[in-house]
Amino acid sequence: MFSPVYLDHNATTPLDPAVLAAMLPWLEAQFGNPSSRHEYGRAARRAVDEARQQVAAALGAHPTEVVFTSGGSEANNLFVKGAAACLKPGLLAVSGVEHPCVIKPAEQLARQGWQLRKVAVDGEGRVDRADWRDVLAAQPKLLSVMRANNETGVLQDVAALASEAKCRGAWFHCDAVQAFGKLPLSFRELNAAGVHALTVSAHKIGGPKGAAALVLDKRVDIAPLIAGGGHERGLRSGTENVPAIVGFGIAAELAAAGQAAAAARIGGLRGELEAGLAALGARLFGAGAERLPNTTYFAIPDVDGETLVGKLDRAGFAVASGAACSSANPEPSHVLSAMGVSAEIARGAVRVSLGPQSTHAQVKEFLNALQATVVGLQRMTSVSVDAA
Amino acid sequence: MFSPVYLDHNATTPLDPAVLAAMLPWLEAQFGNPSSRHEYGRAARRAVDEARQQVAAALGAHPTEVVFTSGGSEANNLFVKGAAACLKPGLLAVSGVEHPCVIKPAEQLARQGWQLRKVAVDGEGRVDRADWRDVLAAQPKLLSVMRANNETGVLQDVAALASEAKCRGAWFHCDAVQAFGKLPLSFRELNAAGVHALTVSAHKIGGPKGAAALVLDKRVDIAPLIAGGGHERGLRSGTENVPAIVGFGIAAELAAAGQAAAAARIGGLRGELEAGLAALGARLFGAGAERLPNTTYFAIPDVDGETLVGKLDRAGFAVASGAACSSANPEPSHVLSAMGVSAEIARGAVRVSLGPQSTHAQVKEFLNALQATVVGLQRMTSVSVDAA
Repeated sequence: MFSPVYLDHNATTPLDPAVLAAMLPWLEAQFGNPSSRHEYGRAARRAVDEARQQVAAALGAHPTEVVFTSGGSEANNLFVKGAAACLKPGLLAVSGVEHPCVIKPAEQLARQGWQLRKVAVDGEGRVDRADWRDVLAAQPKLLSVMRANNETGVLQDVAALASEAKCRGAWFHCDAVQAFGKLPLSFRELNAAGVHALTVSAHKIGGPKGAAALVLDKRVDIAPLIAGGGHERGLRSGTENVPAIVGFGIAAELAAAGQAAAAARIGGLRGELEAGLAALGARLFGAGAERLPNTTYFAIPDVDGETLVGKLDRAGFAVASGAACSSANPEPSHVLSAMGVSAEIARGAVRVSLGPQSTHAQVKEFLNALQATVVGLQRMTSVSVDAA
Repeated sequence: MFSPVYLDHNATTPLDPAVLAAMLPWLEAQFGNPSSRHEYGRAARRAVDEARQQVAAALGAHPTEVVFTSGGSEANNLFVKGAAACLKPGLLAVSGVEHPCVIKPAEQLARQGWQLRKVAVDGEGRVDRADWRDVLAAQPKLLSVMRANNETGVLQDVAALASEAKCRGAWFHCDAVQAFGKLPLSFRELNAAGVHALTVSAHKIGGPKGAAALVLDKRVDIAPLIAGGGHERGLRSGTENVPAIVGFGIAAELAAAGQAAAAARIGGLRGELEAGLAALGARLFGAGAERLPNTTYFAIPDVDGETLVGKLDRAGFAVASGAACSSANPEPSHVLSAMGVSAEIARGAVRVSLGPQSTHAQVKEFLNALQATVVGLQRMTSVSVDAA
């Protein structure tokens, strides 16, 4: 039996059965390489083209602005390094709460002549507007600020940040991997505000692992990270992952169509969850800011996050401590650090991220299990304190 | 109905039903992110670890030497750019018949202070040993020579080339994407001869699109192309494409186990094919060299390759003109060019690449269709000449 309650949708999501159904023909009889000129190849090319239209439509973009990649990390690296490769080194600024796949390539550039500045955030995890203006005054060439944080769910007012940056001539990139499907998202609108590139990923929205996109304003020159046969307008070579791209197209369409209803319903569940957490004395991170409707990041005083996640797992609930993508790393969350949360409190951090399959009953059961677990852990702590 | 006879296995291969069966659980209930600490994540991590062992075993490598990537193009770019990033610019040499995903990143480096040299090949497509020695005398830092060419199927004696290079201190990479599954392939043996890195890909061996590997000697320092969460020992960040990696593991196991028998059977079919082509007056490219057992690259005098491929497609046979990966590009093949074949003759090039599903009957039907098509095209040519 393998069916714990899954409450970790910011790490990855189950593949929507409709998405898998759409992918299967491309995993079976229609296996062609889209670059082939024969019927197998042409069918695959049509499928990739259709998926490109679906992703573009879901994001308010033009199909020719969509560059498919193998994942969000690749898309973020493609923008950061690819745009930098076409510029003379200068100032690059990213928010201090970006995902490692924005921060690490930025740090690689910092070893190659670029000046890297991490923009400060306030105690709720929002970009500090005074620091932002200070960065803009220093004439940055590249900017990257995420729409929604993967750990806290806290939103950045990317349109406003981009508007302030607009007259400065910098390229502005936005990692929207966590926002897509959970919030309305329009590249057309963001682009008008001054955003030049957007990263989105399939496996966070009920689509498959292995497909993502960099949506790119064509005025931005970028060098390919993966050069070769010239696929994706020369910006990303390599045989297209046709089944995953087809799945991404369908998932994007479903996510955009269902976003508003899902957000309302999931936001309601999150309210129940947070009321229960408050009753347990939990501290909620970023709760004073606008957040994704599905994400709760909390700590319970004197309870270690890793330990709690392990106990909850054994009790049948899958939640995260810190970001999944870096949980191989035992360091306290850099996001909480940037928000001024002490390492001691950050060690308690647990993330619950709801999804379309989450139910009222699951939230209730989770709160019950959490309460029982916390009481058990606090009793152990008090026993060990008594014994000491 | 969608069932032309597929004779284009060097472009991509149908997914083996056993591979798809192994992938399906990871596209359904077991959808976790391998970085997650809960049961969904741990199950996914075990699956990736097992696939890594399978790929390593199939290649005579150690599991810790296997770096999973999204495709062969990524793996080749990772080696070329990643190794270069850890060295001071110097001489980089690649054979003139490498795949574009080796040549293009090498050309990117040539714009960043590296000196690029394309090693000459002889009329059969084999690396010219005098030019190789000349390159080695110039103290290269990076070398890349493929094991088998995607267009001609011609093999390079990579072990001998690496042995000559060994005492020179250069890092030697080998693109084995086309060789894997079609020839015996042992990283342990090649590594002993002086090869430091090997690229292999799943979708060329009955596995899925979206998974490949760079098998890497740990003495080689490389910088990640995709930096971020620190996956794949920090060499390739991004959520692992679990279903594709699982499929790659099974496909690698099946390919290694079935390689010798498949090569013997397919080589026999290729013999029948080439006897029939000779009777049609075809010129075979690279036929004087050792080749992959499945690949035939030919031209029929005064018959345009693109036209022939189109006619054969309508007659129900899927074959390639030039390499699939660059057939968006109407230029004559750079491989034939490097072999000294005139542009006029190269425009006639057609590639047939057989696979495990290919049969004697298919080859016979293909030859009949080819003969009928060629006769038809030659008649049209003679009519238009008469009319002129």
